[in-house]
This record gives sequence, structure tokens and C-alpha cells, in this order.
Amino acid sequence: MKSLILSFQIFIMITKAEIIAIGDEILIGQIVNSNASWIAWELNSIGIDVVRMTAVGDSTDAIISAMEESGSRADLILITGGLGPTRDDITKKALCAFFHEGLRLDEPTLNEIKQMLGLRGIPLKEVLLEQALVPDSALAIRNSIGTAPGLWFDKKGKVWVVMPGVPFEMKEMMSARILPELRNRFTGSVILHKTILTQGMGESRLSELIEDWELALPSFIRLAYLPQPGIVRLRLSARGENERMLQQELDEQIHSLQQRIPDLIFGYDDDKLEAITGQILAQYNLTISMAESCTGGYIAHLITTIPGSSKYFKGAVVAYANEVKISKLGVSERSLIEYGAVSEQVVCEMADGARKLMQTDYAIATSGIAGPDGGTPEKPVGTVWIAVSSAKGTTAHKFLFNDERTRNIHRTAITALNMLRKVLIEREK
Amino acid sequence: MKSLILSFQIFIMITKAEIIAIGDEILIGQIVNSNASWIAWELNSIGIDVVRMTAVGDSTDAIISAMEESGSRADLILITGGLGPTRDDITKKALCAFFHEGLRLDEPTLNEIKQMLGLRGIPLKEVLLEQALVPDSALAIRNSIGTAPGLWFDKKGKVWVVMPGVPFEMKEMMSARILPELRNRFTGSVILHKTILTQGMGESRLSELIEDWELALPSFIRLAYLPQPGIVRLRLSARGENERMLQQELDEQIHSLQQRIPDLIFGYDDDKLEAITGQILAQYNLTISMAESCTGGYIAHLITTIPGSSKYFKGAVVAYANEVKISKLGVSERSLIEYGAVSEQVVCEMADGARKLMQTDYAIATSGIAGPDGGTPEKPVGTVWIAVSSAKGTTAHKFLFNDERTRNIHRTAITALNMLRKVLIEREK
Repeated sequence: MKSLILSFQIFIMITKAEIIAIGDEILIGQIVNSNASWIAWELNSIGIDVVRMTAVGDSTDAIISAMEESGSRADLILITGGLGPTRDDITKKALCAFFHEGLRLDEPTLNEIKQMLGLRGIPLKEVLLEQALVPDSALAIRNSIGTAPGLWFDKKGKVWVVMPGVPFEMKEMMSARILPELRNRFTGSVILHKTILTQGMGESRLSELIEDWELALPSFIRLAYLPQPGIVRLRLSARGENERMLQQELDEQIHSLQQRIPDLIFGYDDDKLEAITGQILAQYNLTISMAESCTGGYIAHLITTIPGSSKYFKGAVVAYANEVKISKLGVSERSLIEYGAVSEQVVCEMADGARKLMQTDYAIATSGIAGPDGGTPEKPVGTVWIAVSSAKGTTAHKFLFNDERTRNIHRTAITALNMLRKVLIEREK
Repeated sequence: MKSLILSFQIFIMITKAEIIAIGDEILIGQIVNSNASWIAWELNSIGIDVVRMTAVGDSTDAIISAMEESGSRADLILITGGLGPTRDDITKKALCAFFHEGLRLDEPTLNEIKQMLGLRGIPLKEVLLEQALVPDSALAIRNSIGTAPGLWFDKKGKVWVVMPGVPFEMKEMMSARILPELRNRFTGSVILHKTILTQGMGESRLSELIEDWELALPSFIRLAYLPQPGIVRLRLSARGENERMLQQELDEQIHSLQQRIPDLIFGYDDDKLEAITGQILAQYNLTISMAESCTGGYIAHLITTIPGSSKYFKGAVVAYANEVKISKLGVSERSLIEYGAVSEQVVCEMADGARKLMQTDYAIATSGIAGPDGGTPEKPVGTVWIAVSSAKGTTAHKFLFNDERTRNIHRTAITALNMLRKVLIEREK
């Protein structure tokens, strides 16, 4: 008997979960059911598998039928939508019918709603007080952003969690209160994720380059390629029972990859190149400017999406017309005639010109053919020159992106920011 | 009997459809099931109602169980995903099991694959030839972009359509071949959509302003509010049997709305302000430039996403630092000290400066507090001044957007483009 018990422990308990989204707006295609993806991702990260997602309309019959089916298969059912105060929100009615229950007034919820409305100076409408009514056996889950509480049902070994459909209310409730509770309740396996961000090589070439590393990954670590314009993200997911051991193995694999492709990795998880370069500039008290032709202001836009960027970003010249390149950036007319606007000579003059004009420590310049028109046999659509200028010198590289217009603009901007990052790391260390 | 038949004709036949998406990548939250929304929207526009969406993983059992359930409820079942050439693509296997069929070689599909691969110079791999195998009773639907054909089953009065999961393959196949056939087959009602694009008023104020128009809409026309930063889209959906009559009624309602809010409407359906303003500039042979502070290059970026924008866009100065406003745009130091950077005086000087500097007919300038820091009691976060300058004069307006940083940037850019559009229409007519 003892050996039997021991042998059982090597199995990993997998909790099966299903997600039901309620709302006519999903079924008519007006909104994409992004709530379900977000919930699935979060459940996955605590070791719970989602085996089915369902979306039904604002109809009591449809909700009950979906609940019957999911309840017959899953251990955990998460429901979103239809908890709001308007007439078409009928989820609570369907829950009462499904569980054969009535509604009770939940005093803590009522007090919270009163407090929330009082604080905001909104009059206490009856329709909002109805939000404090919950099915008899439900535990109310606090909603710190909106008035509709979440609901938690424990029925015959199965857990039912009901949340509002408004994404930021659902996410806050799920992160702060539901996920920790689910993790306690379903002590299954642990999944750890780590995403490595690379720039400078396409998905297929990168996968060839790191093929032997990928094939040598242990079986409990999975790799996914997630490409974006100019960036390939490598997501590692490690699944097991021992979190410390998983973390250690993940760190080792990432370390091994870092040694293999040090030039391609620029960050991890939610890092952004515009924030990373901004941090380096701020750290060394440096300033930056741009001379943008084919990117048309997109690099300056990315830089200025970061709060506090005014500390290091002084300005940019978007020089679309050649006359602006000449008169505003000091590009020589001769270079434009001799080499053309999309050339090493001109992009370096643009970068140097911006740096002097804006009186910054560094400057980025771009000049290329974004498309769809303007390509020639020698310089096809997607040909781009990027330069980074500093007092210590000017670096320029040529790229051939060959994409459609918007992708060419995005890839050029991302590549330029990464060039700046590399120059900064090299020169300021 | 005759009257009975006639009375039947006033009922609208509604076809019930369900959508099943297949793929582990959906269940782990790696991708959002946007295929389902797109399909639902398209079905809706030809008068077919989607009553449920389901997503299951790459498992034969899960696929069969989802098919059994959908088949028991719907008249039309659309399935996406799992038709590719890799090992985890098992939809065809599940279809054969579900319909109790084997696979047959479809010659036209084989020829198309051979031709496609031959044209592209790719060697003919066995795994790709397997794509030409289809279930016995299936009609193969041509895939003009990829190698996996779609499948059409007609079984006991129900139609099953199976499509690849790659969005652009699915959309092309559905638009070109499946939707016309479904429309023929399910001769139900027709739905016409028209979206009216408004700028300059928030959703709640707008809905109060047009409430009586909305309430007077005939019952077969529905209105949906679809807000975006700076823009409120009003989508009208008309449903009925007589397309000509529906179109006429829709045109009349839109005409009535145009007369009510002429200043707020800037376009229809997929129109974009950056393209609309670009068309006007090109039409009158005019040029434009920008002086951007809080928008940080985003207006120039929007303008330059439009192919051919180099015809009318000469350049922009992103003037984040005050010293750049002074030295590069000619803003007076006195104005900056006396009124502050976010003021009517300074934004007008910026617009005039850009217009002269870049030698353009028109110039836009923005100056504001995007946030999250930098606000004061007099000028809170979201305070924005926008100016449009031309040889005939300079117009400036103040706005209080009060959003978070990225939304403030987007709203400012959209509002500025619409200000330019109005000035252009007024001055060039």
C-alpha cells in the first residue's frame, strides 16, 4: 500500500476550468472576448488548465444551458458579464434559477456601495442598491472599482466564480482576491512564465540559431515564439510542483540563452525599448533628439509615451521634404543629389544636424522608403538607413525590411531605439 | 389557407449559427479569439444570428463533444482552426470520426496546391500533399492564400463550414466564397450597417443631444455607441427583408442626423481623419506642418501613415523643451514666462513659427499637460491648447481631456486633425 501512495505523488493534479462569457455584444462581434484570454493566461500561471471557453448572449435559457454543460465537465467555472445594474444584465437571475435559490441582501456589500457612492457624491439610486442583493449561498467578492460585487459558489466540490464583464473591474477583482483563493484551493502544479525579448533577427533565422538550445530544454519547459514588428518574444513556460526548483531551472536556461545570443536580447517580460533607453539616458543625465524622415515622428511618439520623458527628450525634427532636411537639419544639397535621401551620407548628416540643432548628447536619424510607392531596383520598398550621433562619433546601418508601410515604420522605430540602446551601453560604460 | 400563407410572410426567418474555434493557443490565453468576433459580425450583416461561441483545445474528444452540442442546437456551425499541416492540427481526423467517414483525395485541391507550390518554387512535401485529403462527403473550399482548403458539409438540413484558423486565410475564404453561399442558402433577413463618425463631444452628452432622434428610429433600426479616444462612432443596423427599402430608410435617418449635428460628423464607416484631411490638402494643392509639444510627434505619425502623404506633409518640429520652442519655432521667451507653455499665446506662436519655418500653407500646434505629472490647480492634467495657423489667420482652442497620458495624447491628436479639417473646409470653400 505504501508504494502505491508514493507512486501517486508523482502525478500532478490538474484542475479543469471552463470560462463562460455572457453578453450580446460578444455574439454580434461588437467586442472581442479578451476577458477569456486574460483569465486563461492567469489561471495557467497558477497551474489551472482551461479546457473550454463559451460565449452566450443575454438570455436566461442560454446562460443556464451553458452552466449545465460546463458544470458537467469542469471543477472550476468562471463566468463574466451581465452583473451590471441595467435591464439586460440577467446573470444573477439565471444563477438563482440554476442553483434554485433566492436573493439575500449582503450588508457588507451594501455598506461598500453606500460608501463608494457617498464618497463620489452620487445620489443613492434604488437600482444601484439592488447590486447588494446576492444569491442565498453566494459569497460576495469585493469590487473596489465598481458597484457590482463578484460571486463565489461552492457546490458539490465544484467552485463557481462570477465576475463583472468590465475588463478593469474583472482584472482587479481576479488579481487581488480570486486568484490567491483559487491557488489555495486548487493546490495543483505551478506554472512559471518568463518572456525573453529579442530584436534584430526574424523568427525563422532565430529559431535555427537556437535550435539545439531549444531541443535540449527539459520536457517540463515549453517554448513559444511570439513575433511583433521588429521584435521576437520567446516565452518559456515551466510546469511542475516545486516552484523553487522550477525557478532555478528557468534561470539556468535563460542564462544559457543569454550567452548564446547576447546581442539580440534587450529585455524581459513587459520591458519596452523606449522605456529601457529612457532609463539609461536618465541614469547618465543624457539628452536625446531625433531627425525622422521615413518614421514620420513615430520614434518621438514612442519616447514621449513614457511619463517623465521630458527629463531627457528635448525635441525632434520630422524632415519629410528634402528642403526641410537641408534648411532645418543642415544636410548638404550635394549629398542629397549625389547619394539620394536614403543613404548613409544623408542619414549621418541628419543625425549630426539634429544633435547640434537640439543641443542634445545623442540623436537618432532615419531615412528610408516606407512604401507602397517610391521603391527602385537599387533601393526597393523597405530600404532604411538609421544613424545614431554623439560627440564621440556617428554610427549608421542599412536595413531591408520589405514589409508594408505601417510595419516598415514600426520596425524602423524599434530597430533605431535598439541601436541607440547598444550605442549608449557601449559608450557610457 | 391563402391568408395563412400570407401571414407567414411577415415573419423573418432567423438562422441560428454557432462558432467553434479549435486551438490550444486560445485556451492558454496566448491569442484572443478574434476570428469568432469577425465571423459573428459578418454573419450578422447577412441576417444570421450567432447564438453561441465555443473554444476548445487540439483534442479529438473535445472537438467531437463541441460539435455534438452545437449540432444539437444550431442550423449552421462554423469551425476554425486545426486544418494546417503540422502534427497538432487534428480537425480533419475529428471530422471523420464525427461524421463516420474516411478521407478522399480531392483532385482540384491537389492541383491548386501543386500550382501554388510550383509558382513559389517550394518543393512538394508529402505533408503538404496531405492537405488535399478531405472527408468523403465534404466539398473542398478553395484557399487562395494557403494550402489548407476549407470544408463544407451538408448534413440533415444543417450546414457545417470548416475553415483554417489563420485569420487572413479565413477572412479571404469567408468573404469570397462562404458568405455569398450562406446568403443564398439561408435566405433570411438582410442587415445593413452604416457607421457615422463623430468628433468633439463625449458619448453621454452626445446621447442626450440626439435622444429624440434615437427614440424616433423605426424598430428595425438599432443604434450602438462605439467610443474611441476622441471619437464616438454611431453604428446603425437595419434589419428586414427588402434591401432597397432598408437602404432608403437608413439614408433618411442619417440625413436627419446630419442636419441635427453637422459640426460633429466628420466621416463614415472606415474613414480616418488623417486620410480625410490629407485628401483635402491634396485636392487644393496645399501643404501642412506641425509644431508638437504634448503630442510628441503623434500627429506627424498619423499623417505619415497615409501612403502619398509626402505630397502635402513637409515636416514637423517636436518641441518638448521650452528652449526648442524658443530657438526652433521662434516662440518669445516673454510669452513663455508670462503665460506658460500651455497657453493660447504660446500655442499660436508655435503654429505660426512652424508654418514659417517649414514654409507650408497650414500648420498645427499642440501644447498641453499629458500627465501623469505636471498638473496644477489652474492647469490640471489633460489641459490642452491646439492652434491651426494659415496666412489668413490663427485659430486656437482650449480643451480639458482629463484622461491618462496615452489617451490624452490620442485625443489631442484627433481633435487637432479635426480642427484642421474644419478650418480647411471653411477657408478653402
